[in-house]
Amino acid sequence: MQAEIDAVGNVVGRYSCADVGAKTLVLASHYDTVRNAGRYDGRLGILAGLIVIEHLARSDARLPFHVELIAFSEEEGVRFGTGYIGSSAVAGRFDRRMLEQCDASGILVGDMIRYAGGDPAGIPKLARQPRNLLGYIEVHIEQGPVLLAENLPVGIVTAIAGCVRRLVTIGGVAGHAGTVPMAQRHDAAAAAAEIVLAVERRCAQTPGVVGTVGRLAVPDGVINVIPGRCELSLDIRGDETAKRDAAVDDAAAEIERIAKRRSVTIESVEIQRTPTVACSPQMQKRLAEAVTRAGIRPHRLPSGAGHDAVMFDGVTEIGMLFVRCGNGGISHSPLETVTANDANVAACILLDVIVNFADLA
Amino acid sequence: MQAEIDAVGNVVGRYSCADVGAKTLVLASHYDTVRNAGRYDGRLGILAGLIVIEHLARSDARLPFHVELIAFSEEEGVRFGTGYIGSSAVAGRFDRRMLEQCDASGILVGDMIRYAGGDPAGIPKLARQPRNLLGYIEVHIEQGPVLLAENLPVGIVTAIAGCVRRLVTIGGVAGHAGTVPMAQRHDAAAAAAEIVLAVERRCAQTPGVVGTVGRLAVPDGVINVIPGRCELSLDIRGDETAKRDAAVDDAAAEIERIAKRRSVTIESVEIQRTPTVACSPQMQKRLAEAVTRAGIRPHRLPSGAGHDAVMFDGVTEIGMLFVRCGNGGISHSPLETVTANDANVAACILLDVIVNFADLA
Repeated sequence: MQAEIDAVGNVVGRYSCADVGAKTLVLASHYDTVRNAGRYDGRLGILAGLIVIEHLARSDARLPFHVELIAFSEEEGVRFGTGYIGSSAVAGRFDRRMLEQCDASGILVGDMIRYAGGDPAGIPKLARQPRNLLGYIEVHIEQGPVLLAENLPVGIVTAIAGCVRRLVTIGGVAGHAGTVPMAQRHDAAAAAAEIVLAVERRCAQTPGVVGTVGRLAVPDGVINVIPGRCELSLDIRGDETAKRDAAVDDAAAEIERIAKRRSVTIESVEIQRTPTVACSPQMQKRLAEAVTRAGIRPHRLPSGAGHDAVMFDGVTEIGMLFVRCGNGGISHSPLETVTANDANVAACILLDVIVNFADLA
Repeated sequence: MQAEIDAVGNVVGRYSCADVGAKTLVLASHYDTVRNAGRYDGRLGILAGLIVIEHLARSDARLPFHVELIAFSEEEGVRFGTGYIGSSAVAGRFDRRMLEQCDASGILVGDMIRYAGGDPAGIPKLARQPRNLLGYIEVHIEQGPVLLAENLPVGIVTAIAGCVRRLVTIGGVAGHAGTVPMAQRHDAAAAAAEIVLAVERRCAQTPGVVGTVGRLAVPDGVINVIPGRCELSLDIRGDETAKRDAAVDDAAAEIERIAKRRSVTIESVEIQRTPTVACSPQMQKRLAEAVTRAGIRPHRLPSGAGHDAVMFDGVTEIGMLFVRCGNGGISHSPLETVTANDANVAACILLDVIVNFADLA
């Protein structure tokens, strides 16, 4: 492999074939993760690709297409509030305004890229041409409990759920906890409680949809004061955009009804809305066949989390292979774990897909 | 009046009668309030007493008993986390361990009393002898919306609600908001939401009982993480101790059921449990008669908030007169308000009670 660090900080290895004009299959994932995270998120996919290419190189196998293994520089968006920096550049989707985003201490993305040895001016040139691409495959830890419950080492991703995120502020009437009769209250926390349960109930109704209130707080809450204000966040996802949007709309309508009944005010700000991205049926088929050849039941599941793969929607065919996540499916935590055996199964399947990809190329 | 500042910082005025051995009627309230508070909490009762005694003195009226007007030094407990400092001293209930409590910067109550010119060693001597007391009357702003809704300037307090306070921590399982199916979640915030609504529902069932979740928070909540922990506070009060305790027990049982159903853990710490204190029927009658003589319908109501009066339970007869609170009943806020007319009505009724107290003394 020829390796380099590109202008946006991606680490790129190229395992070339003799035919310079051949297409390229991209294997990729990200090398950043969140704070206080685990070892496998992102890096599992990079290492799986590295092992596979090492195997091909050692056995002196040359393919009828190029393989690029890309370790993306920034997927999570923890520091700058904006993710997919590395993958958007490679997919030709990099938004130059991203360079002007800053972290909590005011440092700009663009300055940080330069400081790390990159070159913001060179980013547009990183965009791969769709006509040169054969496809995009990402191996990733599931980050959830589904494969664990299915007792399977790997699964084939059907779609990568898009996300609607809103910040909701409820305005009630503060009052003394001892002196305002229950019937005369406009308690912002009680309204918030109804909203939390309404979101949970609505999302539980539709398989493939999940809804979470991750932030919930009465700001400066006091034990003997009826909450006059409560803040919460909504995060609703689904394996189909329309299904997800229906849940969001129903939840919003229910929030309105709760607010009206309790005479509290609602301020709801949508801060994100991304569509659900389907994985290519052809790529799913290739992965399922390789899984079956490995003697494993091919289980298909949606990804509730976002992945670099979404950047390649419309650019090339996307495939994703999930690897079972131990410890109840916990991720973004030091408890995140993958067994060596499951990692090996994933790498073997990836190798199989690549070797058999040749036939179709 | 002879006036002095006593050893614990109370401002005490004594309007004496000729008979040195006569009993004493105490008129009192507190001169402290909370941070960012209103003008009337506590001080309204002191000023009402001052106006009444000024009126008696100007008209050269001497009573067959002594009147003490006491402005208590610390009722709220904001700074040191422990209230009723001034009134507990006068009632003979001062707990010397209170002197060792400290504020956020480590300053002890005892040192602060000395710094302000008081004398902790002199506090025990402030205790009044029950046999020398005729009764205790406190005029206070209602701090709630009941009299406003009843369209009445004043009301007669039946009881001062005691309070059960608990801090509840719910332990669930944190997880990725996108990857854990709804049915596999143990969401601490969703459990908290059920608790908030269960407390509200149970307390609304019983007139005279109120329940509040004033603090509610997912610590370090993140928009895309299922809450693994949620903290809330409970404050349940009632106009009768047994009624209040029944509500607390029912709420606790419901919390257990919620925890069991959702497989989350509950840690509940009781930080306060004070009994409800009844006002003396005789004192309620005196106040009601004076209210009626003023041409006002005598409305009886419990006090959901604590007052210095509770310190005199078992020491002497307690009476409390509430004054209508404007602005929807808001208190502990700069919006707290009382009209001049309502304050005048309260002072006139207090005068009437004192003048007619003479007949019974």
